[in-house]
Amino acid sequence: MTSDQTIAAIRADASYQKACDTMRAEHDRTVADIITLTEIPSPPFGEEKRAAAYLEMLRAHGLEEVGQDEVGNVFGLRRGFGNGDVIVVAAHLDTVFPPGTDVRVRREGTKLFAPGVGDDTRSLAVNLGFLRAMDAAGIRTRHDILFVGDVGEEGLGDLRGIRHLFAKHPLRERIRGFFTVDSPEVDRIVTGGIGSRRYRVAFRGPGGHSFAAFGLVNPMYAMADAARALAAIEVPRDPVTTHCVSVVGGGTSINAIPEVVTMEVDLRSASEAELARLDRAFLAGVDAAVAAENKAREGTITAELTRVGDRPAGHTANGSPIARLAAAAVAAEGYTPSFEWSSTDANIPMSLGIPALRIGSGGAGGRAHSLEEWIDVEIESSLRGMRASLATILAVAEMELG
Amino acid sequence: MTSDQTIAAIRADASYQKACDTMRAEHDRTVADIITLTEIPSPPFGEEKRAAAYLEMLRAHGLEEVGQDEVGNVFGLRRGFGNGDVIVVAAHLDTVFPPGTDVRVRREGTKLFAPGVGDDTRSLAVNLGFLRAMDAAGIRTRHDILFVGDVGEEGLGDLRGIRHLFAKHPLRERIRGFFTVDSPEVDRIVTGGIGSRRYRVAFRGPGGHSFAAFGLVNPMYAMADAARALAAIEVPRDPVTTHCVSVVGGGTSINAIPEVVTMEVDLRSASEAELARLDRAFLAGVDAAVAAENKAREGTITAELTRVGDRPAGHTANGSPIARLAAAAVAAEGYTPSFEWSSTDANIPMSLGIPALRIGSGGAGGRAHSLEEWIDVEIESSLRGMRASLATILAVAEMELG
Repeated sequence: MTSDQTIAAIRADASYQKACDTMRAEHDRTVADIITLTEIPSPPFGEEKRAAAYLEMLRAHGLEEVGQDEVGNVFGLRRGFGNGDVIVVAAHLDTVFPPGTDVRVRREGTKLFAPGVGDDTRSLAVNLGFLRAMDAAGIRTRHDILFVGDVGEEGLGDLRGIRHLFAKHPLRERIRGFFTVDSPEVDRIVTGGIGSRRYRVAFRGPGGHSFAAFGLVNPMYAMADAARALAAIEVPRDPVTTHCVSVVGGGTSINAIPEVVTMEVDLRSASEAELARLDRAFLAGVDAAVAAENKAREGTITAELTRVGDRPAGHTANGSPIARLAAAAVAAEGYTPSFEWSSTDANIPMSLGIPALRIGSGGAGGRAHSLEEWIDVEIESSLRGMRASLATILAVAEMELG
Repeated sequence: MTSDQTIAAIRADASYQKACDTMRAEHDRTVADIITLTEIPSPPFGEEKRAAAYLEMLRAHGLEEVGQDEVGNVFGLRRGFGNGDVIVVAAHLDTVFPPGTDVRVRREGTKLFAPGVGDDTRSLAVNLGFLRAMDAAGIRTRHDILFVGDVGEEGLGDLRGIRHLFAKHPLRERIRGFFTVDSPEVDRIVTGGIGSRRYRVAFRGPGGHSFAAFGLVNPMYAMADAARALAAIEVPRDPVTTHCVSVVGGGTSINAIPEVVTMEVDLRSASEAELARLDRAFLAGVDAAVAAENKAREGTITAELTRVGDRPAGHTANGSPIARLAAAAVAAEGYTPSFEWSSTDANIPMSLGIPALRIGSGGAGGRAHSLEEWIDVEIESSLRGMRASLATILAVAEMELG
């Protein structure tokens, strides 16, 4: 069967249709869950309260082996009838918003406004909706489905939740497919995981009076050299590879040679090999810059590198079964599917060679990562997206057809 | 008469000795004045309260033409018997400390601790002590002496008080000598005024996502080039000339090309010509750095230069009468005089070719510009320094000998 045929068969199945009816009947409950979860703050490295609430929801949904790991991920298993292979359906618990952010949801018509409401709280509630729909319809899948609410997807969280899942979860060896349901959009299927390495580099020297200590090494000059060296590194357009010096700072007063200056650096690539090459070239540039400054003036500069981010690159082939099934399910709902590159929880399984995608939670949304973040929970567009993602999950989990 | 002979004649004069007796008798009053003035906050660009208090003190000391100019300097004239030529005896009203700094004086034995107590509040009180001593002894000088409490000596004040005095004071054309009594030390006579030019440079570009907007101009790369260009400018050791990139900052997040980055730059020289050459070379480096970045990537960087400091260089020849008299007066008290370079209110008259020195207020002190600033008002060392400076002033003002 082609992917289109598989998806068509699922969509024609009475139990899938019953599942869809259930999602429609339970739409208000899904919206209520979105609001409940959104209003539990879940800042970076502070997901505990939301994780505890979600853990109870997973338990209330009758999953097995419900639990929480030591980094804070929560999960539960829906058993399949096969040999115990596992498909992961995840959404991330964390938001980008710091503690103290007002996360109350404001509703205007079918729009909900709140920080984090779409990225990725909606998906947490939608995954529960999938679960209830499958249960109400008596859907059986060959593979077990592990539902996960994971920590640390955003920014400095550095994918630590999913990283840990693949390193330590008891079922990790049995995972043969991975979905992160992340943000509303369903047409843009993420098959490419952009890898990144991020550094904070502190250049330190003795410092001194700008006039009296003239001739002493200046850490800014070493930093300038290192920045120039990075800017000069040539990178391929394909696989897409980029570099950037972003945040810089340092110095104490206009009449003082700085003691310390810092820069933050963001290196990215669609290719792990290119990323590693870029990383080495950057580090060599820092070393050369420090050596040049130490040769040019009196005293000693040192560079202290802190790796503040490390996301592996990866790719799920656009022609792979999981990608073709997702595209077919999205197309069957009348969207025009596209395959995209991004940096999501799916980077981790992609980097391990496990088929993985980012799929959508349905409906519309915008202004993610801003205080004006919003989603639209209008029922038809919401269900349309949910049906596409549910069909994708069921196809990959090998739903038993009636 | 040699300088030594002139100083010896003054020191032997009965009226000078009576003046010295008066300074001894009034030592406690001088200390009380130091405390009173120190405890009136006088932050940069906020000298009004201390200026008002000092204005009343000048008036109470019987000076003529007491007044305040539009930038905040206060002054009063002690008339001489000559043709109206003027010698300025100044101390600066401002401190480096911001509003809200605790300026209460703590006394331990003969030590007084408080921000600004030595730099330069002691000198304000000491100059009043000189005045009372001269009056009590009936000392007459050929030249008029203009006593000044001036604003804006420190940091970004950029010598604006004394600059204004020489630009606008009604007597400016008659000034033939200038003393700034600044800090306790009397042995290190400042005859050289280090000039400086200070800039804040903002490099601006469109900014954008570090990954999605890769290839766009990055203002940090232009800044890095400009910093490297400055670092590479060769400057002479004599006249001493220096340059420094000091405070840097900018950028919004690790995954964004900055929209703006800034650097502060301090250029100094003992020679106005070298300073101008360095200034031109620095500005050319900024232009070239911006052009190079605009050529290397897409988009446009601009550099916005703000001159935050401009102190002219100048020098009073070490062999000049004023310098020789000061050295003789200092040596007569048993110190070993030296001629130094610094950046003080005396830069302005030096740059105009008017004989000018920085001399000391006597006693000891330390930790200027820190919250632990202190002075020692032990009577013998205080009077010893005051005698040296008073003899210098009287020699230059051409005291009438008995």
